[in-house]
Formats: sequence, structure tokens, C-alpha cells
Amino acid sequence: MISVNEALQLVLRVAQRLPPVTVPLHDALGKVLAEDIRAPDPLPPYPASIKDGYAVVASDGPGEYPVIAEARAGNDGLGVTVTPGTVAYITTGGPIPDGADAVTQVEDTEQIEDSSLESKRVRILVETRRELTSVQCQGCDIEKDAIVLKSGDRVGASEIGLLATVGVTMVKVYSTPNLAVLSTGDELVEPTTGNLSRGQIRDSNRAMILAAAEQQHCKVLDLGIVRDDQEELERVMDTAFSSGVDILLTSGGVSMGDKDFVKPLLGKRGTVYFSKVSMKPGKPLTFAEIKPAENILMKKILAFGLPGNPVSCLVCFHLFVVPTIRHLAGWANPHPLRVEARLLMPLRTDPVRPEYHRAVVRWEVNDGSVKPGFVAESTGHQMSSRLLSMKGANALLELPARCGVIAAGTSVPAIIFSELNCTDIIKMSDTVASGGGPDRSGPRAVSVVNSSAGKLGGARVVSTAVVPDDVSKIKNVLQRWSDIDKMDLILTLGGTGFTPRDVTPEATRELIEKETPGLLHVMMQESLKVTPFAMLSRSAAGIRGSTLIINMPGNPNAVGECMEALLPALKHALKQVKGDKREKHPRHVPHAQAAPVDEWERSYKSATGGGRETGCSCSH
Amino acid sequence: MISVNEALQLVLRVAQRLPPVTVPLHDALGKVLAEDIRAPDPLPPYPASIKDGYAVVASDGPGEYPVIAEARAGNDGLGVTVTPGTVAYITTGGPIPDGADAVTQVEDTEQIEDSSLESKRVRILVETRRELTSVQCQGCDIEKDAIVLKSGDRVGASEIGLLATVGVTMVKVYSTPNLAVLSTGDELVEPTTGNLSRGQIRDSNRAMILAAAEQQHCKVLDLGIVRDDQEELERVMDTAFSSGVDILLTSGGVSMGDKDFVKPLLGKRGTVYFSKVSMKPGKPLTFAEIKPAENILMKKILAFGLPGNPVSCLVCFHLFVVPTIRHLAGWANPHPLRVEARLLMPLRTDPVRPEYHRAVVRWEVNDGSVKPGFVAESTGHQMSSRLLSMKGANALLELPARCGVIAAGTSVPAIIFSELNCTDIIKMSDTVASGGGPDRSGPRAVSVVNSSAGKLGGARVVSTAVVPDDVSKIKNVLQRWSDIDKMDLILTLGGTGFTPRDVTPEATRELIEKETPGLLHVMMQESLKVTPFAMLSRSAAGIRGSTLIINMPGNPNAVGECMEALLPALKHALKQVKGDKREKHPRHVPHAQAAPVDEWERSYKSATGGGRETGCSCSH
Repeated sequence: MISVNEALQLVLRVAQRLPPVTVPLHDALGKVLAEDIRAPDPLPPYPASIKDGYAVVASDGPGEYPVIAEARAGNDGLGVTVTPGTVAYITTGGPIPDGADAVTQVEDTEQIEDSSLESKRVRILVETRRELTSVQCQGCDIEKDAIVLKSGDRVGASEIGLLATVGVTMVKVYSTPNLAVLSTGDELVEPTTGNLSRGQIRDSNRAMILAAAEQQHCKVLDLGIVRDDQEELERVMDTAFSSGVDILLTSGGVSMGDKDFVKPLLGKRGTVYFSKVSMKPGKPLTFAEIKPAENILMKKILAFGLPGNPVSCLVCFHLFVVPTIRHLAGWANPHPLRVEARLLMPLRTDPVRPEYHRAVVRWEVNDGSVKPGFVAESTGHQMSSRLLSMKGANALLELPARCGVIAAGTSVPAIIFSELNCTDIIKMSDTVASGGGPDRSGPRAVSVVNSSAGKLGGARVVSTAVVPDDVSKIKNVLQRWSDIDKMDLILTLGGTGFTPRDVTPEATRELIEKETPGLLHVMMQESLKVTPFAMLSRSAAGIRGSTLIINMPGNPNAVGECMEALLPALKHALKQVKGDKREKHPRHVPHAQAAPVDEWERSYKSATGGGRETGCSCSH
Repeated sequence: MISVNEALQLVLRVAQRLPPVTVPLHDALGKVLAEDIRAPDPLPPYPASIKDGYAVVASDGPGEYPVIAEARAGNDGLGVTVTPGTVAYITTGGPIPDGADAVTQVEDTEQIEDSSLESKRVRILVETRRELTSVQCQGCDIEKDAIVLKSGDRVGASEIGLLATVGVTMVKVYSTPNLAVLSTGDELVEPTTGNLSRGQIRDSNRAMILAAAEQQHCKVLDLGIVRDDQEELERVMDTAFSSGVDILLTSGGVSMGDKDFVKPLLGKRGTVYFSKVSMKPGKPLTFAEIKPAENILMKKILAFGLPGNPVSCLVCFHLFVVPTIRHLAGWANPHPLRVEARLLMPLRTDPVRPEYHRAVVRWEVNDGSVKPGFVAESTGHQMSSRLLSMKGANALLELPARCGVIAAGTSVPAIIFSELNCTDIIKMSDTVASGGGPDRSGPRAVSVVNSSAGKLGGARVVSTAVVPDDVSKIKNVLQRWSDIDKMDLILTLGGTGFTPRDVTPEATRELIEKETPGLLHVMMQESLKVTPFAMLSRSAAGIRGSTLIINMPGNPNAVGECMEALLPALKHALKQVKGDKREKHPRHVPHAQAAPVDEWERSYKSATGGGRETGCSCSH
């Protein structure tokens, strides 16, 4: 069995960058340049004004001058010469007329309104320095003949802008690979199948891998499901080989069963480099090269026999096929981002094979107790058939092959395969139950909440609303924010007192599914330190779905005190509430050292799929 | 002037999620689900085998048994019952026949080859435990009626797989916005224009913003260049409003010039919420809402008047338009990833406006001297017309408005707007100049290099090759690795002695453009401590393009010693070499505390565009 690193190096050695093609500008997006790009002309092409104002002769100084011309952006100002004693109107980006050596910004001038004068006149109010601080010299941004982009640079939006700037509308870039996908297995039926007969499952791998390949900007070809039949498989593969694909991906048919035909067929048509990799999941991964001489199009085709288990299939795609696609497409570094992330729970390792544990990695900001950095949360039970373990995952934690458990809090390498967005923000809303008018200290209280938010691990206030003191209206807003917008935290401000129009707690109580009296206790305790009137607060707090709703007082100082009192536990509370969104079992061991043994056991089991496995054998 | 946060909150309050649509499975990729998805049947749909082997009655124990049937994946095994004293062949994924209560894996069995027997027989070699460790129970992965995906989940490749698994081929998702883009300005000409007349520049913003919007999965409409003419602009805008767009983006025409018509026109057709934001770059940003009653399609249209300077234009797009697009498309959290990154150079701040400084942020692994984490490198001079400052940038550093300089080493918030890939790896290659055969200690030397690489801040060996002792062949490999593959570092191993076939230094010297004698000095010094024979090394080292090439000895121990001696400066050396790729001025102050004042000055000026600005006025 070959190691993951050896296998990957071998694949990248066999893979060759595809030949360059020339494409229209907008098709170059995401591709790698195959030529250096030079600027044919300087930018700006002429000395240009940075401001709206008047082109002047600096030595003239303040005074009243006739406006002899207008040198707007797009107006070539040809033939205009500003002589001492005259000025010319100029707009941002406009060419500086001959003779002028400075620009006085419009804010430092005064229009002279006098209809009796024949020509427009202006009063210059300040000394204008000759250093031309308002003038951008010719070629300031880009010199003529400068190389603005190099072969090997990847084209993003700003590179598209640069190419347009220098007038390149046809661009030489490396081709991205064409990729064909087929699934094998007599048990597979199309996803459109409504009722499954005994022995059937729907083919998920093909749609999944086609989508994953599209995310890598490949052109894809769907070859369908192929029965476990040697002749049919051979026919479909040969079709693929002659259709111009660069990469063929199969899934299934590569384990030990006597009807696994993929590997023998790849061996028949080309060279199989490996068919087993020391990794978990994904062991039965096959890689082969179909040499130019062996196919009709005389081009090299790479073939991956991916495992049939959906998780193994997608993990192998990310670890091996994505770098291959990028290498073919000319990326200088085809490897995915690899960071270090702190485990939020203990994870058991495999004694024999390194494991690629699916996880959600997110950035955690400094909240006083921990340093900012990435943290990793397991997606739960890691069985390779369980596609749910890939759901929402954005990283593979690279766990070494060894006997034991990696403790919570340990930093492990994390290979990021999907967006890091979206996981670091706690969405928060304030209802300002105003009643008495918009100014009832609402804005100040909001700003207190805003400043507390910073201490909440990436929390950000994403919505605010001012709602009249009316139960159904408050309920409407709370319901929308929790059920539709799925806020993590809603804070209501005010409306918790004894007056008839104080109805926020009533509205809140009707909506919450689980009360959280401890929060109210702490807030009350805190507020009573300041004033006995605090006992008049009737605040409610609780959980609805995955949203925590807390009634805060209306007084900004009181809001600050309450927030401060809740902060030590609030972040953890929100994590727990959010956890409900994903799965039902407990998955956090935030205070690992202090956790009682049974909680350790439970969270450990759920993360490793333990309970089935009985101990860890170290016989390798 | 409104603050960036206030402006963004306001935009997101005005923006409304678009209505859901039902699309075919493959069109759901990247979109947000607008419905909960339930599993109509359990997965696996039947108890299934995890291995290839034989379904047995566990209590039978080892012995010889007739094989009564085959229960392959896809074969429904209907009517087959395994009775005590019989077994059935089964493949991975195949349904467990009635009567069987365990699977013995094929590795623990022996086929009985005896053609005189009527039926196939097999010898079971081990006790098979009844706990069914090789059997996956019905619904193990997904229970019937379980919610596998929730409204609000974003659809990636694994979610496509899950949808296919549960047979959902038409999916209810939130629409992504349609977006139209136009540029305004008399100075603008199409990028196809070869020779610019005086006063003309090519329109880069439109192509750039169209590309950026496509990266956000929007459907885009190109409205072309519009002259600085009120009537023409009004006509084109009205066309956009009636064409079904959700977002209109203009660039240019929003500063103070007397021909800036965008804002007045937006005010005429709808509500302008703000037209100046306290930020640098991007101050003249306008945001307006065209209400349903005010356009023919009765739908809400959001309009952004982006600044005409290309950098301001793209920065505003990332900060304001991207979250708007995501909000419209139903993302729960529309904000980009925000991390903290350590500055690699001091940066001057603006006294009045917070600055969004373009930078390359990359993950730096632990190299002993620093903790792992993100580091940020400025893209140089930040003038808002200078699109080169966006080239290769993947982050905006959020610098507070205050007077002064933020020291190198300080952590600042970084908004990540593009891929974090590709920047953390130092690509390294070894040529093993073998000559005498493949085993001449090459592999061991390679492994020494590999283990040193870990100390090189994310270095990874991405290619190795064994090359005969032949000048032109060595040159070929070195040239390909430096010019085409753009390796950061190439280490040759061996071939540096006095024998006739030792020609590695000759090949190297012919290729390098700049010699680096100091490295050779240090390696020699180190090796001489061990053996006087070290003086026989004729190693060469130098820079070609952006690649550093160093001849190492062939002896693995000597390689280790040399690498150890070079390590303290090698990482910095590679940074400097790589820096050449981008721009010519020095941009690193790696040992800030120890750097002499003039180097500070120089790098400070180049990063802030200093030299033009004379001091920092704090009069706000």
C-alpha cells in the first residue's frame, strides 16, 4: 500500500499541464495565463487630474481668473493652453491642459456669478502648490511596456480588469481539463427512481462528483450508470477515451468482489500505478494512465477508479483529483489550503491508516479566554457510507495513524476543501420595543449591544428593528428572525417593566420552546447590585429552534451590565443552541480537562462512531 | 458621511431575499435550499454487507459449507434463505439473505476446488461473531423520514449527493440575483481599442465587475458604456429597470463633477439612501432602492453607484455588493470570512477614514520562531486608480482611522475576498544527479531534504527527478522547474565533486542569473567542521527568475548539515526571491526590531506610497 503523499506525488508526476488555448477575455476568468502581458501604453495615458477643479499656473496664486476652457475626462482638451492669468475647468480623470502645472480643487474656489461678463470667471481662494498633488503623472499607475501580468498568474476579477485596461481581449491561457464520470454497480438506479426494489440504492456519486468537478471549472461528461458487466464497462470506457476527455472518473467496482472490473480494464488499456492507498476512508483508490499510443486521440488520459462508498469517493476526489485538475490547468501550486485547527472534541485515531476526518473548521476571534485561530468540529460518525458526515463539512482533519485518542484542544492539520465563510459569525438582532417614540434610549442601547458583540466570538448585529409595544407585532418580528432568518441570538431592548404597554416578555414567552431561567437569574442578580428597582424587571428568555431570545432592559447602562454578566457563558450557550441545527447528540467538550468521565465517553463515542468498535488493536 | 458598518446594515435591511424557485438537481449547486428535505426510505434500504465474503449462520462456526446462493450488490437475493449448515456468497453492499446473521470476510475463507462436487463449497476458517460487525443495519446511515437537509442549507457537492441519495431531482432553492452593469464616462472606450486618442482610457471596470459578479453565481447583463449624457443614461437605466434585474451596478459618475448624473437619476427613479461612505478607497459610493411601484416589473431593484476608480470600484463591490447578492440569494450569513493576520510590514493609517488596504494573506506554519497563523503582505502603493494593487490580492486589511503607523508584527482584521490557496507553499525540487545508479544515497538525501522542508515555513517538495550526470540534461530539468513550474527552491543533490562526471555546478552556473556566494560560504564553513574533504565541493548557487537553485552535496549527512546551516536565512531568502515576481521595491521588514532606520524608511514608504504625502495631519 502506497502512502497518500507518495500517491499524490506520483499522480502529479504523471499528470502534465494541458496545452494553452487563446480565449476571449471573459472566458479567461479562473484560468492560468500562458503568456506575459505587457501594457501597450502608459496609464494614465496623459497627466490627469485627481480632483474636480481648475487647472492653473501655480505661480499665479489666489485671485480672479477667466475660465478659458473645460478639460473634462473624455474631452481631449486639444489645443488648449493655460497661460499665466487664465485657468481651465477640469474634472476627475481629465487631461491637464498644456501650460498648467497644478490643479486647485473646486472646494477652494468660488464661482463668480456676473452675467455682465462675457466669459466665465472663477475666484481662486488658496495658494496652489506646484508639486501637482492633484495631478497624476503619465504612466503613474502603469508604465508603457511594463509587464502587468505574468505567465502562470491566475486570472481573477482584478486581473480581468487589468487585461481590459491594457486592451487585451483575447488571452492565452492553459486549458482546463475535460472530465467524464461514470458509476458502476448492479445495485445502482437513477436518482429519479421513486420506489426502490429490494437490493437497489440510488446513485449519488455521479451527481456529486459532476458537481464537485464543475466547482473546479471542468467541462464534464456524464457517462451514466454501468452494470457490473465487463463488456459494457469496456465499451463505455472506450467511448470516453475517444471522446476527448483528459480525466476519467469511475466510482465503485474497485474493491475485492469478483465482479470488480474497473482495475483489470484500466490495466488492459493503460498502466495502473496504484490501486490501494493507506488512508481512511478511501483505501481502494486506483490510478492509471492511458498513454497517447493507447487511445485514438493520441492524448494522455488519466483515470481514477474512485471507491464506491460516497464519502470515500468525495474524499479521494478532494485529495487527489482536485490537485490533478489544477495541475493540468497550469496552477503553480495545485495543493489545497492547509491550516492548523484546534480540536473542539477528542478524536480517536486509526492504529494503521492515517485518517481524513470530516470537520467544520471556522475562525474563532479572540474573546479574552482563547487566542484567535481556527477551531475544528467533527461532523460526527465517520463511517464511509455515511454521506451525512460530509454535509456542511469544509475540511479534512489529517489524523496520524496511531493508537489512541487526540485530546480536545490539540492543534491538527486541516485541509480546507470548501469555503471558510459563514461559520464565524453569530447573527444577532435587537428589537427595540419603543412605544413611547423612536428615541427612548434605543439607539444608545443598540450601541452598547454592538460593542458587547465584539466579545462574543465573531458576533455581529445583522438586523435591528423598532417595534411598537404590541404583542402580535413583537411576535411577528421574533418569529421571522428566528424561523426564517435563523438568527443565533435575538436581544429585545425594553418593554419589560410594569406599565400597561410593557408586553415584550409576554410576546417572548408565547414563542419560546425552552425557557432558560439561569440567564434571567444572573441578569437580575447583577442589576440588583445597582438598583432595587431591578426587581421590577419581568424579562423572559429562552430558545426557539436554533435561536436564543433574551429580553434586555431598555436602559443602556443596564443593558451593558446584563451583557457583561452573561458574556462568560453566552458564547458557549450559542454554540450549544447552534449545535441543535446539525445533529442530536452532544458534540462539544469545550472544557475538556474539567469534563466528567461520562461526558467524555459520550462525546468521544459520538465523534468516532465508538460503541461498535471495542478497543483499539495495535498489532501493526 | 455614513460609516461602513452603518452603510452595510442599511443595505442589508433594504435588501430582501428573492422568492424561491424549483430547479433541476444540478442547477441547485451553490444555491440555498428553500425547503427541508426528508428521506423517503432508509439507507441502506436493507441490512447490507460491508465486506466481500459469505453470509453465514454465526453459530455454525468454522467448517466446510455448500454455497447456496450469491447475494451481490444489486441482486435482490429474493427467496434465498441461509439455513444452518449453508452459506451464501455476498459482495460489499449486497443485501444479507434471510436466515444469515453474520458475514465472514473472504480473507477468512478458502475456496474448495473440486470439480466432482455438484455445488460450490467453501471452507470457513474462523469463528464469526454474531454482532454483525460486517453488516450495516437498515437505516444505519439515514433513517426513513429523517430530515437530511434543512431550508437555509447551502448546496455543495456533498449536498447534491445527499439529494440524489434520497431521490430529490427537483429542488426548491432561493433565486440568485440578476445583475446589470454599466460604465459611465466620456473618456471611456472599449477594451478592444488599439490606439488611444488623447483623453481616452479603456473601460476596465465593466469587464472586471461582470467577472466578479459571475464568481458570485449571478446572471449578468452587460449594458455597455454610457456617455456623460443625462438622457442617454436615463434611457439605459430604464431599460435595465424593465429587464428584470435585481441589482444595477454603475461605475463612474458619482463624484463631484458637474456631469455626474448617476446620483440625481437614481434619486429621480427611487430613494437614495447614501452617497458617501467614510472609507478609503470608495468614498463616493451611492446606494439606492427603486421601489416596486416605480418600475414596470413591480419588483424591488437595488442600485449601487460604484466609484469610477477601478480599485474603489472593486473594493466597494466586495464590501457591499457581495453581501447583498448573498442576502438576496438566501444566505444565512452573507458576510465574508474575517480573520486576523500579522502584518509583515509597517502600514501608515489614514487620519480620517478607515482604510481597506489590499494585501496577500497566507497561512504561515510553525517554523519554530513564530506561531502558526495568517500573515499579511501589502500589495504596495495603494492609490485608488492603481489596479495593480488588487492584482493577486485576496484580502482587505481593515485599518482604523487614526494618525500614525501600525507596526510590523501587529495583528489586524483581514476580510478575505478571494481564495486563500496557493500562497503558503514553498515549492521545492530535488535533482538527484545520479550517474552511478539510482541508489547512490539519493533516496536518503531526499528524505533529509523532506524533513528540513518542514522547518521552511510551509515548504513542500513537489517534484523530484533523477537525472544523469549530463550538463544539458541537468540544465533541461532546472530550466523547466524554474521557468515553467516556477519552483521557489531547487536543490540538486550530488555531482559536485572532482570526478569527470561531476557536472552539476557547471549546468547550474550556465543557468543562474545572479550568484549567491554567501550561501556557498556558509555551507563550506559548516562542512569543513566535519571533514576537510569538504573543500572538494564545487557547489554553485544562485537565482534564476524567481527560483533559488542550490547545489547540495550527495552525502545525506552532509545535506542535513548544509540545510541546517542555511535554514536561519533561507526562508527570508525565498521571500525576497519571490518578491521579485511581484514588484521591484523591497517590501519585507522581517526583523523589524533590528532593522536599521533606512530600511524601515524605505519599506515603509513603498508600502504606504509615502514620499508623496508629507506628514500626517490630524485635524479631524
